[in-house]
Parts: sequence; C-alpha cells; structure tokens
Amino acid sequence: MIILGIDPGLATLGYGVLHKDKNGNVSAQDYGVVLTPKEERLPVRLAMLEEGIGKILDKFSPDEVAVEELFFSKNVTTGIAVAHARGVALLTCVKRCGRLFEYTPMQIKQALTGYGGADKRQIQQVTANLLHLKGIPRPDDAADALAVALCHSFTSRLSALYSI
Amino acid sequence: MIILGIDPGLATLGYGVLHKDKNGNVSAQDYGVVLTPKEERLPVRLAMLEEGIGKILDKFSPDEVAVEELFFSKNVTTGIAVAHARGVALLTCVKRCGRLFEYTPMQIKQALTGYGGADKRQIQQVTANLLHLKGIPRPDDAADALAVALCHSFTSRLSALYSI
Repeated sequence: MIILGIDPGLATLGYGVLHKDKNGNVSAQDYGVVLTPKEERLPVRLAMLEEGIGKILDKFSPDEVAVEELFFSKNVTTGIAVAHARGVALLTCVKRCGRLFEYTPMQIKQALTGYGGADKRQIQQVTANLLHLKGIPRPDDAADALAVALCHSFTSRLSALYSI
Repeated sequence: MIILGIDPGLATLGYGVLHKDKNGNVSAQDYGVVLTPKEERLPVRLAMLEEGIGKILDKFSPDEVAVEELFFSKNVTTGIAVAHARGVALLTCVKRCGRLFEYTPMQIKQALTGYGGADKRQIQQVTANLLHLKGIPRPDDAADALAVALCHSFTSRLSALYSI
C-alpha cells in the first residue's frame, strides 16, 4: 500500500510517500516539496500547487492520503494563506483518492512519540529513526509530510487491529 | 462583457453575474449561491464547491472574475474554513478565466458608496439601486457577490478612462 502525506503550505508544500507492506512495515519511497514563488499572484500559485500535487499523484498513485490540519498560534495572515493552499491540496487529492484523512499536529505527535508535548525536532528525529533514514529529511516541510503519513500508517493499523 | 463576482464561503458561496455593455451600463444576469452541507466532510464540500462554480462558469463564460478578499474580525476558525473555500474558488476560476481580480471589503465599499465606512446593509441597497432591482437580492451572499462584481466593473472602467 502507498500512503501519501501532505504538509500544506503556500510557498512550500511538503510531501512524503510511504510504502507499507503486509506486515505493517513502512519505508520511505520519496519525499520533497512543491514550491511557489512569492512574487506570483495567489491564484497562479494555487494553480501551481495543484499541478505539483497532480504530478505526485500521477507518479505514486497513493491508496490513501493523509493531510495535516492547520494549527493556529502566531500569524493569522500566514494561516489564511496556508488555508487557501490546504483547500487546493484537499480538493486535488479527494478528486483522485477517496481515502483521504486529516490529522491534527497533536494527533501526529501522539502517534509518533506517545505524548502530545513533543517538539518539532523530536518528531522529525523519530520520523527519521522509524524510516531508517540517515538524517532528518530536509526541508522541514518534507519531514513533516513523512510524519503525517507515518501517523496515518500507525493509526490505521491500530484501527484495523481493534476493528474500530 | 460578462463579469462574475464571487463572495467566498464554505457553507454558502455567493455568485453574481453582470452584463456590461459598450457604454459601461451594467445589468444583473443572474445571482445565487452554491451550498454545501455542514455534515459532509471538508474535502467533499470543497469538491462540491468546485462543481458548483464550474457549472456557473459553463453557463455564463465570464470574461472577468472578481473575488472578495477575506476580512478577519471575529472568528478565526470560520475564517480558516472560508479560506479553504476561497482557495478552491480562485483555483477553479483562474483555470478557466485568466482575468481574475481580488477586492477587499474596503475597496468594495469605496467603489460603491465613495467611502469605506458604509455598513453591509447600505452596500446591499446601493447594489440593488445600481442594478435597478426591486429589492435587495437574497441571500446576503448573493448580494455581496453582485457588489464585488459591480466594484470590479467601476474600478476597471476608471482604470480604462485614466489608462492606469
């Protein structure tokens, strides 16, 4: 099974692709980012994101997609821009893959470390360890996308075990 | 020329379609809303919005599209939902109509009443008067969409007059 994780963003949207075998073992197939230039108009940037995500869907044909939910703490203006991008990401994915799931940052932290207080760096290190990567994936957005894909992998495995 | 105005929203997205003749006279061709059910999942609602906007674009083939920008005052959570919807609206429109414009609530107020302090009801009344409608269009979202289309109509006329 192929799981695509997405960390939404307007300037930088992270993606991570996992393969999960029949025993539940996961490995990273690919990860990276879709970039849009700040000087371009918002509608054009959104179309660039759709195209970039479309290429990833074409290449990997994921069975399931996991998208991180927005968490608001600091900058509302940035949050609004990310929400535009996230809307485009959800739309693009749901049209191609009905099995689309959303996870909050807290759910991701709990799934990967067992508690919700882990910091960003810890999550990235755990992600690298679980996927047997030599270092933390760069940039952060790609690492975060792998983390949400891993979160989905673990969560859906538990759901299956307990028939939730 | 056909101008499509859009007032973005997740549960209710307003649209208004204007015809503008060679003398700059405008008339309302149509207005209404695209609705999505609250009990449905977000990605599915976004796909419903895309479909609804697509039908409007099919029917009217607008030459230019004007979309209201988000203004944040009260509820950040609601604003995030609207931003998801607005991202989908911008994407859907820019793929079909390259002449896409964005206006802030302040720009709309100034274009329609000459000052930025007008309240929502005044804007709706001016919209109805300018379009020779018998009453204020319902629901509010449709009236607001006509207002942004009118704002674009006036703004682009001034731009042409003064060759801005």
